Amino acid sequence: MGLPRRAAPGNIGYSMARVVMKFGGTSVADPDRIRRCATRVADRRAEGHQVAVVVSAMGHTTDELIALARRLSPAPNRRELDMLMATGEQVSVALMAIALQEMGLDAESFTGDQAGIVTDGHYGRAKITTIDRTPLEACLAKGSIPIVAGFQGRSSRGAITTLGRGGSDTTAVAVAAAIEVGRFDGHCEIFTDVDGVYTADPRVVRNARKLERISYEEMLELAALGAGVMHARAVVFGERYGVPIHVRHSQRPDLGTVICKETPDMEEIAVVGCALKEELGRLTVRRVPNAVGLQARMFERVAAAGVVVDDIVQTEFGDMTSVAFTVEHDDLAETQDIMARLLAELGHGELEIDVGLSKVSAVGTGMKSHAGIASRMFQALARHGIAIHNISTSEIKVSCIVPRLDGQRALQVVHDEFRLGTGGDAPMRVEGQPGVAYAP
Amino acid sequence: MGLPRRAAPGNIGYSMARVVMKFGGTSVADPDRIRRCATRVADRRAEGHQVAVVVSAMGHTTDELIALARRLSPAPNRRELDMLMATGEQVSVALMAIALQEMGLDAESFTGDQAGIVTDGHYGRAKITTIDRTPLEACLAKGSIPIVAGFQGRSSRGAITTLGRGGSDTTAVAVAAAIEVGRFDGHCEIFTDVDGVYTADPRVVRNARKLERISYEEMLELAALGAGVMHARAVVFGERYGVPIHVRHSQRPDLGTVICKETPDMEEIAVVGCALKEELGRLTVRRVPNAVGLQARMFERVAAAGVVVDDIVQTEFGDMTSVAFTVEHDDLAETQDIMARLLAELGHGELEIDVGLSKVSAVGTGMKSHAGIASRMFQALARHGIAIHNISTSEIKVSCIVPRLDGQRALQVVHDEFRLGTGGDAPMRVEGQPGVAYAP
Repeated sequence: MGLPRRAAPGNIGYSMARVVMKFGGTSVADPDRIRRCATRVADRRAEGHQVAVVVSAMGHTTDELIALARRLSPAPNRRELDMLMATGEQVSVALMAIALQEMGLDAESFTGDQAGIVTDGHYGRAKITTIDRTPLEACLAKGSIPIVAGFQGRSSRGAITTLGRGGSDTTAVAVAAAIEVGRFDGHCEIFTDVDGVYTADPRVVRNARKLERISYEEMLELAALGAGVMHARAVVFGERYGVPIHVRHSQRPDLGTVICKETPDMEEIAVVGCALKEELGRLTVRRVPNAVGLQARMFERVAAAGVVVDDIVQTEFGDMTSVAFTVEHDDLAETQDIMARLLAELGHGELEIDVGLSKVSAVGTGMKSHAGIASRMFQALARHGIAIHNISTSEIKVSCIVPRLDGQRALQVVHDEFRLGTGGDAPMRVEGQPGVAYAP
Repeated sequence: MGLPRRAAPGNIGYSMARVVMKFGGTSVADPDRIRRCATRVADRRAEGHQVAVVVSAMGHTTDELIALARRLSPAPNRRELDMLMATGEQVSVALMAIALQEMGLDAESFTGDQAGIVTDGHYGRAKITTIDRTPLEACLAKGSIPIVAGFQGRSSRGAITTLGRGGSDTTAVAVAAAIEVGRFDGHCEIFTDVDGVYTADPRVVRNARKLERISYEEMLELAALGAGVMHARAVVFGERYGVPIHVRHSQRPDLGTVICKETPDMEEIAVVGCALKEELGRLTVRRVPNAVGLQARMFERVAAAGVVVDDIVQTEFGDMTSVAFTVEHDDLAETQDIMARLLAELGHGELEIDVGLSKVSAVGTGMKSHAGIASRMFQALARHGIAIHNISTSEIKVSCIVPRLDGQRALQVVHDEFRLGTGGDAPMRVEGQPGVAYAP
């Protein structure tokens, strides 16, 4: 990709860029903090850039709204929950626009719908399918700052849909893609309450180290594996549309991590980070006849319910087969129902549920060129007496399902094994500053 | 109009009607109250009627949202305020739908936009111009209950607009008109925190009496004159589209007032009610040359700013003219700016501002056939030493501008003069029960 170089001190001749700034719930938790974010937006504008803003709901608004709904129903309808939750971001965009206007800037708020964000209509977990860039381009063209409600869109049938936890990140990168920040030498800034992307969750692993850069691929694996920093889909969008993503702390924005295309020097490091996904449950369907299409039938229904399946393992005994897979605890009850119905239809088989599992993973683009990463990880876990229930690997990650009680210890073991606290097996060379095209 | 008669006990053979039920902010202030409203909706459904529901924002939500905005700007942008306030009703519709679903009923929430409500785009005071009935009819056709967000709509340019205080009443009657409750032997029920329409504000006039029926015309005058019960525009819609409006207390729904077409017996009573509008200010433009078109120029600008002008008085001295008019205190500053700019353009004239005025009015369809109502009112006020600053009359009302400090006393004087506490000069005959087609 080639990150833009830092401008020389005193050089203010760099061209206008397009920047999307996204502020999370903590950053806009009250009017004072909203004003602080607005100041940051005003600063970026003063540097001559075109800016679009994406905001989350204030503080714990979303949780409070869900709690209200739960007082009326233990399992509120998902369409109505989306209708309810979407108000949180709508409040934020209006207040952010007011704060910017009070500073003398032109700004205009947009709901997801108004911003042209169309989703697949899957309530609570919708995926953005289309953005009509017309309204945002029209707003930018008149010199105004569009403020877009994160986390939401409209289905093709006109219903309000939300993108799931962390969905505002996806909105931000999708907006950046729609207004082609890549073409305008720009990027997407995600302001959050962490300093950036770490080698592991610093609340669990004390010597976790902040990364200055990470590739989309690595970040994607880490996000999918439970690293809370970024919504996986946001990273996918970033990769697909070439949007550099800057993750920054809203109070200390000079630090941060840049998520960008893989560069040759990234290959030198085998493992970049490790992650822990907790609260997993496993469903095992035992002793069913191994008919053609059985697996398709199983996972088709699970997917139709919008449940994300983690790892799948299949074993056979004669004509009979057993299939085990993990899902998040939250989805366990729904998945159990689906499987129980399927077994009733088949007239065969047993269903077994395990709760209390965790998954520890090591991720790195460099794994492709470094042999033996998986076996080093298994040995390290074995040395510390941690049982491995299941293994899955990809080109750039190795994951092990372990007992939940051993999860955090397992994360530390893996982190230490690959010396992530001190820069990894091979030191990462970083040239220049991470993509701060707008820094003075 | 002919109100439907009360069904005989045991007779459950009355036909299905269409009923719109509107619940105000107090009625849906918390989940328990929302559940109680939902029970009322479920009851009406159980009686075999088709029901559509309109809800306001919960409790003081709207005020709280405005307070948030004011922490960011002393005069927040009106477009953004509308964006912000509209979330209040959106929360209510989702929760109401969830409450109904929990009772096993099919229900579906709609924002104003989703319900096809299009407005003239005047932020904060928008008027409904069109309703596309398609989405609501589709919802009713599948046996579901549409829950519509009151107080809001979408401008033809796609912006969220609100209808001003009390606008949810207008939404309710407009929805009732759109789904043609008149054709389906139905009506619109406004559940509120008062028992119905009184001869005067019972907080001010102790012997105020609840009316069982009132004509649209009378209600319209009372609403315009400051009787807080109903939004004037809701009454206009009711009259225009033949929607009987039942105003009911949400906790004591067996009482209430029916707003309906005038019937011959209503003519027998001269004055039906009286009202007090407080917090009025007067602007007097003095000594301007009386050019043709002067008044048009003045009030065109005031109207363009969305300010409602109360009474206008003009007097002449030679070539010079003076124009005085009253507006609500809230609009005084804006109107003053408009007039000051106008005088600067004219290069003539002086502007005088009076604050602290009130308007007391007597209203009744029967005035048309009873002479001398106005002079009786002036005499009564004079007897009690209350100065009259201005008088305006219509076919069915007489209004006097009085000092604010005398306002409440003036209301009582007028109420007593026309013996409203004991049924008025001529007793009102009411046959049967007020329009309770659905009572057991």
